[in-house]
Amino acid sequence: MRQRNKPWADDFLRDHQDLVIPNAKDYKGKWNQLFDNNNPIHIEIGTGKGQFIAGMAKQYPSINFIGIELAKSVIVSAAQKVMESEQENIVLINENAENITDIFEENEVETIYLNFSDPWPKNRHEKRRLTYHTFLADYRRVLNSNGELIFKTDNRGLFEYSLVSFSNFGILLNEVNLDLHVIEDPENVMTEYEEKFSAKGQPIYRCRARFNERT
Amino acid sequence: MRQRNKPWADDFLRDHQDLVIPNAKDYKGKWNQLFDNNNPIHIEIGTGKGQFIAGMAKQYPSINFIGIELAKSVIVSAAQKVMESEQENIVLINENAENITDIFEENEVETIYLNFSDPWPKNRHEKRRLTYHTFLADYRRVLNSNGELIFKTDNRGLFEYSLVSFSNFGILLNEVNLDLHVIEDPENVMTEYEEKFSAKGQPIYRCRARFNERT
Repeated sequence: MRQRNKPWADDFLRDHQDLVIPNAKDYKGKWNQLFDNNNPIHIEIGTGKGQFIAGMAKQYPSINFIGIELAKSVIVSAAQKVMESEQENIVLINENAENITDIFEENEVETIYLNFSDPWPKNRHEKRRLTYHTFLADYRRVLNSNGELIFKTDNRGLFEYSLVSFSNFGILLNEVNLDLHVIEDPENVMTEYEEKFSAKGQPIYRCRARFNERT
Repeated sequence: MRQRNKPWADDFLRDHQDLVIPNAKDYKGKWNQLFDNNNPIHIEIGTGKGQFIAGMAKQYPSINFIGIELAKSVIVSAAQKVMESEQENIVLINENAENITDIFEENEVETIYLNFSDPWPKNRHEKRRLTYHTFLADYRRVLNSNGELIFKTDNRGLFEYSLVSFSNFGILLNEVNLDLHVIEDPENVMTEYEEKFSAKGQPIYRCRARFNERT
């Protein structure tokens, strides 16, 4: 995503620490204290401008949502969207996906969403793809035993790669959908990208996966 | 596939027993004797009118190909195609896919091809799909330790189902391709269906899978 320079982003984040939580690592194992309830925790890695996670929070008020986004200039847009939605079951964190095991305790998370992640199409960048095995190992660690990884993308190459990566990691597929918008699904909350690409008639791929206890 | 009635099919098959092998079960564990060499054996389950397997036999002369087709009125077309190709590394058998463990010994087969298999879209027909777990158990039995299952289809529902079925059976994916004809692959031999659907711009899905030793 092209990021416009937003010199006011630092000020905005300093003024909205109840929404974009600083020092997220301090909450490791204690996120339910922040939300003040024991509802399940769903996280989105690479939350972008926040349309998906804000929509999900509205649709599922008894789930706690945490959106993770590294780009400061992007997370402020997500924060504004979340403020408008006035939902209390959602916070954001301005962190790198590489740190999720520092931010979440083992079994603390019920669902991880990856939406339209950067495909990093060059072979030499394979390690940066959010479905590379090092990331999968981290997801397995923080997900609970019923946990799911739900992955959507319009990028064919990334989806093909990810199915192979999942398979070789011992991840089991609960569902695969190779053209998500053929049938309208009222439960599917679209991201900004998804609206754009789907409107062009491009297929959107999705899978729901669980980690095999045996591996 | 709509099958025209071909009253001469029985006569044809009786006259071409060197090509469409009767009593295939007698060759279990001995197919290499029939071919008179120790080349690897690749089988296609549901060989239809034979364009794929005849093309493969021509492209790979040091592999022995066996096409399996239940419909008598269809296998005669495949037989005619094979006769025209004058390849010696190919035979056909008029048998049901359900019987492959009676026809092949454990580890006798190197590759199994499933091409544009009947999707059996109704839930109550799931057991008939050639990627249902009972079939997968048979494939695992006859494939050798390096063996691959290579599956192509234009049917989205069947491919989605099959990826989930493979995953839950412990099959590992070597490759997934969700739009086979975006880039022309000179090694890809097309079936009759594939030519037709691909010309219409429909995506052709393919995966190559291996059986996990651990399962």
